[in-house]
Amino acid sequence: MDSRTIGILGGGQLGRMIVEAASRLNIKTVILDAPNSPAKQINALCEHVDGSFANPKDIEKIAEKCDVLTVEIEHVDVPTLKRLRETHPKLQIYPSPETIELIQDKFTQKEHLIKNNIAVATSVAIQSPSEETLAQVGAKFGYPYMLKARTLAYDGRGNFVVKSAESIPEALKTLGGKPLYAEKWAPFTKELAVMIVRSIDGKVFSYPTVETIHQDNICHVCYAPARVPDSIQLKAKLLAENAIKSFPGCGIFGVEMFYLENGELLINEIAPRPHNSGHYTIDACVTSQFEAHVRAVLDLPLPRNFCSFSTSNTNAIMLNILGDKKEKDGELKTCMRALRTPGSSVYLYGKESRPQRKMGHINIIDSCMSECERKLRYIVGEDAEPIVTSVADRVAQEIPGTSKEPLVGIIMGSDSDLPVMSAACKILDDFEVPYEVTIVSAHRTPHRMSKYAIEASKRGLKAIIAGAGGAAHLPGMVAAMTPLPVIGVPVKGSCLDGVDSLHSIVQMPRGVPVATVAINNSTNAALLAIRLLGAYDSVYHQKMQEFLLKQEEEVLVKADRLETIGYQSYLEKK
Amino acid sequence: MDSRTIGILGGGQLGRMIVEAASRLNIKTVILDAPNSPAKQINALCEHVDGSFANPKDIEKIAEKCDVLTVEIEHVDVPTLKRLRETHPKLQIYPSPETIELIQDKFTQKEHLIKNNIAVATSVAIQSPSEETLAQVGAKFGYPYMLKARTLAYDGRGNFVVKSAESIPEALKTLGGKPLYAEKWAPFTKELAVMIVRSIDGKVFSYPTVETIHQDNICHVCYAPARVPDSIQLKAKLLAENAIKSFPGCGIFGVEMFYLENGELLINEIAPRPHNSGHYTIDACVTSQFEAHVRAVLDLPLPRNFCSFSTSNTNAIMLNILGDKKEKDGELKTCMRALRTPGSSVYLYGKESRPQRKMGHINIIDSCMSECERKLRYIVGEDAEPIVTSVADRVAQEIPGTSKEPLVGIIMGSDSDLPVMSAACKILDDFEVPYEVTIVSAHRTPHRMSKYAIEASKRGLKAIIAGAGGAAHLPGMVAAMTPLPVIGVPVKGSCLDGVDSLHSIVQMPRGVPVATVAINNSTNAALLAIRLLGAYDSVYHQKMQEFLLKQEEEVLVKADRLETIGYQSYLEKK
Repeated sequence: MDSRTIGILGGGQLGRMIVEAASRLNIKTVILDAPNSPAKQINALCEHVDGSFANPKDIEKIAEKCDVLTVEIEHVDVPTLKRLRETHPKLQIYPSPETIELIQDKFTQKEHLIKNNIAVATSVAIQSPSEETLAQVGAKFGYPYMLKARTLAYDGRGNFVVKSAESIPEALKTLGGKPLYAEKWAPFTKELAVMIVRSIDGKVFSYPTVETIHQDNICHVCYAPARVPDSIQLKAKLLAENAIKSFPGCGIFGVEMFYLENGELLINEIAPRPHNSGHYTIDACVTSQFEAHVRAVLDLPLPRNFCSFSTSNTNAIMLNILGDKKEKDGELKTCMRALRTPGSSVYLYGKESRPQRKMGHINIIDSCMSECERKLRYIVGEDAEPIVTSVADRVAQEIPGTSKEPLVGIIMGSDSDLPVMSAACKILDDFEVPYEVTIVSAHRTPHRMSKYAIEASKRGLKAIIAGAGGAAHLPGMVAAMTPLPVIGVPVKGSCLDGVDSLHSIVQMPRGVPVATVAINNSTNAALLAIRLLGAYDSVYHQKMQEFLLKQEEEVLVKADRLETIGYQSYLEKK
Repeated sequence: MDSRTIGILGGGQLGRMIVEAASRLNIKTVILDAPNSPAKQINALCEHVDGSFANPKDIEKIAEKCDVLTVEIEHVDVPTLKRLRETHPKLQIYPSPETIELIQDKFTQKEHLIKNNIAVATSVAIQSPSEETLAQVGAKFGYPYMLKARTLAYDGRGNFVVKSAESIPEALKTLGGKPLYAEKWAPFTKELAVMIVRSIDGKVFSYPTVETIHQDNICHVCYAPARVPDSIQLKAKLLAENAIKSFPGCGIFGVEMFYLENGELLINEIAPRPHNSGHYTIDACVTSQFEAHVRAVLDLPLPRNFCSFSTSNTNAIMLNILGDKKEKDGELKTCMRALRTPGSSVYLYGKESRPQRKMGHINIIDSCMSECERKLRYIVGEDAEPIVTSVADRVAQEIPGTSKEPLVGIIMGSDSDLPVMSAACKILDDFEVPYEVTIVSAHRTPHRMSKYAIEASKRGLKAIIAGAGGAAHLPGMVAAMTPLPVIGVPVKGSCLDGVDSLHSIVQMPRGVPVATVAINNSTNAALLAIRLLGAYDSVYHQKMQEFLLKQEEEVLVKADRLETIGYQSYLEKK
């Protein structure tokens, strides 16, 4: 697609995946890194440069062999890059040396973001680290706070959590000698990330907002999209886009942020290169983060929406594969389980196995996030059951009455239905049936409804109670999209006394039944749901028996009283 | 994932894509082909073998360097493979030499399939080709018939359509000297293909059924899934699976077939290797045909459903990129248009451009096939409009009243609604409005309904008329999933006089209106649709004016008569 050669500083897994993307477009690449590094293994077309991306001489060598120079790591020698711009005026360098320089030093990065009005955690540079200065920070920020190396930090190396004044000596021992800064603890509930592509003319494009979970400071899994409300996904995307607009040059950027308890978003840090949190894009998007980077630095087209999910219902989880701590190549057992899992893809980087080293990653794709999660549990070995186990098999393994997961879903078309539907909640509470209750509108949230109906049985629900008024489509449509029993509650609206809802729910065609109860009678809907559960679960069966006996008794007491005192006194005293 | 090395006979694009898939799993590959062939370019880990897959000496050389030997082309030297089995008992060869041998000779392949009760086109071997023998075939099969080389044929080379007795001399000139067979003309409406993976223990797994379209005998585009009814897709899959069950050995197979006018399916031919019709799997499926092949020949896991689409609503079109006939590298213009198109991926094979040579392919992915088709039209240059044009822009470009594509969609929940809904068809016929009419059941085909609603505006529909009875959810649910105006027709059922349908359709919540007409009055629904069209299209506006005038006149004539002859004679004479 382009006759220019891209030189890459660094030949690790990120470089390898850039090379793969470039080869697919017949674009030549040349690598600077140790001999036989991952990226070099899959490119036999060029004579690569053996050496280091931190060594000026080696960088000069690769500059002779390429037209565009880029990085797969930010710890490169920036002065050489700046000098090359003078000596090699035709060579293009992306991201720009200034951007790399700003980002290399994490405190300078923060200052730059603050200057551009981007929200970040409060930080302070530590000029001369000592027990005294660190105690001053503790007094100002409170404990815990983060102590961080300003430069050459990655995968949590260079970070230290100062839990209390007592841990200051250990902090100094671990990070002493490095340029440091301290960061106020951000009370986050989740970590989010967004990959941003910046074009040569300064336009920014964002991949979906994802959620990352770290273990031992290393990215463990990444959920795409993030399991946060749509509004937060959008807010994160805008924050990331604004941050990247402030950096000169082009290419792909990874933007990591904290999602705080109070709903606020703060940028944590930025990487001027492909990022671990974007590996999911290889399978979940048509254009991966690696191809996006290649296209950006060569000024090839980046059309609107090119970085969205492949199709509208794509969900993905990325799992990093780290070198096993106990056994060399032990991590391949995880990979083998992934190969046994449909919709999973394994990527290995051609590295020798060492404990906690990033050896590869696994992408898990499904139309449904809870199904991705189930596959993940099997792949990481938490879930011993083979992934092909049917729902019926899983049900059979459950011990009656012990489920903590919801068995009944109560949904309604509008919050105005809640006063009616709450009676069903009350009954399920009384019977100690685990249930969930939410609003799903057939008309205003049709896709949410489809998702709810399709996932319901996979999530373990056994029955759905759906209430709706007017042209009450919710119960029937949910019944059309799930094999579970659906119980419909016609809710009385302001006109027609609920007859409209009753007709809309009960008059279903042959083939798709809805168990319809009386108008506004959600009590009966819940009791019917418990009867369904009781047919397979003796605990609920027994409780229903008892309920019926109690009901019978109440009537018998009344009958006795009526017979004893006569109808006139009964009416008078009631 | 496996320490064994795979040797590949042939290093063209299929070999290249096998190497890419193997590298992702850290699996070593070694290639036998000309120096610098496409597959060798992306593998720097091994010393490859320069030479030919048809040369015994070269095959022996690569056998020394690998543990498993496979092919990317079937025209390899089979006797050498058979001999290697004796001299190298540890070497595994997949597909088995017997399978390659059976398939290499296309007439032997046919005989094998017939022996295994697989439907194929009627054929006859031609022992000594002459004008006389070919005329005898013409007398037996009728004209046109196909004359085919039994061996070394690909991309239509080796095929000749004998149109009439007059074309026999040319046929002999073109194919003379080769071993030949003749095939009765199969009056097909479409060509279908299925990729099948066969595991070492003989299990078969099938990718979705696709539809291929050839130009100049070379695969031009491939639609996944095939645009045929689900039942035909299933029938094709079963036929392909049965065919591949009959061949020993393992690996991936491409099965091409004809879909005849009478609904019958016949196998055309089989390839014992990755196939052009499976390139869409790289983007549309999580596990590509190339990875499937690697996994099969190494006996790595092939879980149930591993070869289905990534997510349930994936649609794909694959476009082959052939070397431009006029200008060297002229085909890159097509690739550039693909890069400008969101959801499209370009794959180039690292070959020098020559006219009609397979240089690469493009995969187009979308949730909606008609959207894939629109992108394709832009990429091939048929459609000059930029792909980002909004629907509104496209509408503005249309010349009023000239559209041949349907503007109105008439749908109904059941064929029992047709007598009522046909009145709407009649009106649209009278007004010469292009429309379509079909059955879409909200309850029995909920996913078809979602698809219909979501795609409607993209396909150019301007209004939808939906009729339904009983718990009539169709109009409201369609309205929930499309921004188009939806007109609801309550159809009277056997009970409640249609009041149930009326309530179900008209009592929609705030936010999602359905334009409801009277019970059973689909005439008004059609007239309302024409009024909607008329608001933007003066042709329909004018026709509606005329219709109203005519209606008015009819009443005025009646009024005149009533006034003239008096009410008694009017009633008597009516």
